[in-house]
Amino acid sequence: MGESFGAWRMGNDEHAMPLVDQANLACGFHAADPLTMQRTVELALRHDVRIGAHPAYPDLVGFGRRHMACSPEEVRAQVLYQLGALDAFCRAVGTQVAYVKPHGALYNDLVRDDALLEAVLDACASYRKGLPLMVLALTDNSRELQLADAADVPLMFEAFADRAYLSDGQLAPRRLAGAVHHEPERILDQALAIAAGEPFPDIDGKPLRLVADSLCVHGDNPESLAVLRRLRGKLDAL
Amino acid sequence: MGESFGAWRMGNDEHAMPLVDQANLACGFHAADPLTMQRTVELALRHDVRIGAHPAYPDLVGFGRRHMACSPEEVRAQVLYQLGALDAFCRAVGTQVAYVKPHGALYNDLVRDDALLEAVLDACASYRKGLPLMVLALTDNSRELQLADAADVPLMFEAFADRAYLSDGQLAPRRLAGAVHHEPERILDQALAIAAGEPFPDIDGKPLRLVADSLCVHGDNPESLAVLRRLRGKLDAL
Amino acid sequence: MGESFGAWRMGNDEHAMPLVDQANLACGFHAADPLTMQRTVELALRHDVRIGAHPAYPDLVGFGRRHMACSPEEVRAQVLYQLGALDAFCRAVGTQVAYVKPHGALYNDLVRDDALLEAVLDACASYRKGLPLMVLALTDNSRELQLADAADVPLMFEAFADRAYLSDGQLAPRRLAGAVHHEPERILDQALAIAAGEPFPDIDGKPLRLVADSLCVHGDNPESLAVLRRLRGKLDAL
Amino acid sequence: MGESFGAWRMGNDEHAMPLVDQANLACGFHAADPLTMQRTVELALRHDVRIGAHPAYPDLVGFGRRHMACSPEEVRAQVLYQLGALDAFCRAVGTQVAYVKPHGALYNDLVRDDALLEAVLDACASYRKGLPLMVLALTDNSRELQLADAADVPLMFEAFADRAYLSDGQLAPRRLAGAVHHEPERILDQALAIAAGEPFPDIDGKPLRLVADSLCVHGDNPESLAVLRRLRGKLDAL
Repeated sequence: MGESFGAWRMGNDEHAMPLVDQANLACGFHAADPLTMQRTVELALRHDVRIGAHPAYPDLVGFGRRHMACSPEEVRAQVLYQLGALDAFCRAVGTQVAYVKPHGALYNDLVRDDALLEAVLDACASYRKGLPLMVLALTDNSRELQLADAADVPLMFEAFADRAYLSDGQLAPRRLAGAVHHEPERILDQALAIAAGEPFPDIDGKPLRLVADSLCVHGDNPESLAVLRRLRGKLDAL
Repeated sequence: MGESFGAWRMGNDEHAMPLVDQANLACGFHAADPLTMQRTVELALRHDVRIGAHPAYPDLVGFGRRHMACSPEEVRAQVLYQLGALDAFCRAVGTQVAYVKPHGALYNDLVRDDALLEAVLDACASYRKGLPLMVLALTDNSRELQLADAADVPLMFEAFADRAYLSDGQLAPRRLAGAVHHEPERILDQALAIAAGEPFPDIDGKPLRLVADSLCVHGDNPESLAVLRRLRGKLDAL
Repeated sequence: MGESFGAWRMGNDEHAMPLVDQANLACGFHAADPLTMQRTVELALRHDVRIGAHPAYPDLVGFGRRHMACSPEEVRAQVLYQLGALDAFCRAVGTQVAYVKPHGALYNDLVRDDALLEAVLDACASYRKGLPLMVLALTDNSRELQLADAADVPLMFEAFADRAYLSDGQLAPRRLAGAVHHEPERILDQALAIAAGEPFPDIDGKPLRLVADSLCVHGDNPESLAVLRRLRGKLDAL
Repeated sequence: MGESFGAWRMGNDEHAMPLVDQANLACGFHAADPLTMQRTVELALRHDVRIGAHPAYPDLVGFGRRHMACSPEEVRAQVLYQLGALDAFCRAVGTQVAYVKPHGALYNDLVRDDALLEAVLDACASYRKGLPLMVLALTDNSRELQLADAADVPLMFEAFADRAYLSDGQLAPRRLAGAVHHEPERILDQALAIAAGEPFPDIDGKPLRLVADSLCVHGDNPESLAVLRRLRGKLDAL
């Protein structure tokens, strides 16, 4: 959330915020400007939503979705910068960033690149002891657990309600047809399966089971709001 | 200091840092990138230099020296953003931002615009109780003291060793001939006079007396380093 | 038009383009990115719409609406840069920029600042002999005519269908209540009055008459499209 | 050249310009701002130097040296944008861009990615019939010649005096030790060998022969100026 930028609106934060438990907030590198960040933090606080920092590669035009060959040292500094910037708005209203979830291409690159993952882990550990990093729930997260353990950073595992998966739990790349679900039933089914720890179909229709702490619905997906409402109801009824 | 940007170098921080007690560090809006900020914070720490946040209008091309018609609400958010970003690098090495000194056009606008000054004071107070704001030492700072008192923010008063002054203690605008001193003797004399609380010549040659807590020598002035060395020696001998 | 930026949409260019004779296209400084510019130029060409360059101060976050203290020399270079960039997309499809209309704060500053107006006129004249500049139609444009004559630049005069006016023909600043018309009838009435050379009410309700070559309806005003459709019909029927 | 940015200086254009026949000028995406571009174009014109556009990925902080996963469609639009922007300053002084030479990571990516090379070729062809593209001289440039022929774009082949080469004529990546020559004799020897069509040592010391139309000495290499002076003398004496 908080992915508007200056005069440009994105998402529907006013309506989505009451429906979620935690929100990843853009930090100015792929989206958001200082005033947008301040307002989104205040909105999250009003609805008692935990705030996650959503740092990204410095690429506004590309919305942080284009891989950039940044060095681990650059990425560590980029994450610290964005984390501190967002936390300033949190501190100003008496709360704090609860976790870090990298955005877009940076998030995807963490799955493939140990040095990048270590850089982000080090940014988290350096900023505040115990600050968790959210990573993609895979069928096997032993690599992530091992590196996080070495860095003394708690992990949170995230699954996506509105994205298709490859068979190993990687997200199907956005350029593939069917990578983003738009049918509300499909998003809802996938969300409920993940919440219940049950298998759901991957991009080839084969069953996939993921263990996740957090369930993501993208704020820039136009179907999100209706799905979120129904999902909130179903999860509250569990 | 810390006013390099990406591949572009500015100033001579390695040599200047050992000579100062406190350093204003750029926060990415007029200069500096995350990695430059990290390295400059580490450099300051090695030399036991107090770190001031140096937030600016968002104007890299103009180096934050061009007035921009930002609203007080925007300025408050811009200052919080930059303050938190710099503080992240401080926290990562176990220290913290010690004060806030706005840069360039924003610094100058604070003298003229109550709403802007209140916005910056509120950013300081909201970020951390007791975080001081550094403002321009004038012959009469009662306005600044009154607004800072209302916001419960301590003030630090700054005088410039290498800038010419108007008779009321305002800085002579950079576009005026003689606005920046380049003769080492002149910078040194002005610095020592301010440090001793004695009068020194304003831009018209008339005596001006300023009471200041902090003495600024610009890092981007090529004469700075030689002057700083001599000044450090003289001040240490006082 | 063409005021989307990366992932952020603005306006409704697909539907508005068939309804206008000429379109001011953002050039990347207040809005638009290269790909957006390319697509909007192609869209304009398909609908046989004349393309105006819409250069602005370099301020994406502020959408070019915040005054910046740029020097005339900087403004001349900024306008040339943006003009050439947009014209590249025009040349690539066999057309060319037909006129220049500065955007936002830069447009407003031209009314007040002779040196800025001369800088923009010089950019037009230097780029291509005979390239017209579009300026605000006032009750008295003798100042603009004199400077444009000296620079050998043709002027086009523009009036706004959806903005309230002060009594001298200046636009009522956006911060004033009632500065932007949102009632379709009001926009339509003002547009038809201007087109017919007849008086219409200024912001105080007093009659104002403006002589204009071009009638502007803002693309970011949500009421624009419906009004444009009706206006197109009425103008075609004149 | 023209790689300064706002308040930051880079290179020594005043002294280097009189020594070269053609200069690649930054276009604002990796370096340069509009005023810097204007002044560098005027400097080139005074010294009768042919002007090449030096477009890059949009990455000021990374100086265009970091690979970005931009699509061919984005790259084509980025090149057109920058080409037109630079050409505006050329047109304003009665000259025009003479060729296009992509910068940094974009330049390197063209060797590996047919779709990107086709995108850049199409930008050149669309902008102006006959506008040449400068590419890296390899031991075998048949791939580049074939694609350029299909796009009807003339090629210019460039070799580097101050960079080490792999055995196939690819540039040794900057991260390798010895990738950039700093010894003036080495740069001079390599330059003269290339100019004479004679072999010179690659990064492993084995002889490499390249056929080139253009010889590049980087403006941001501190040794450049002295080498350029001696090289100019030697080449003029051939």
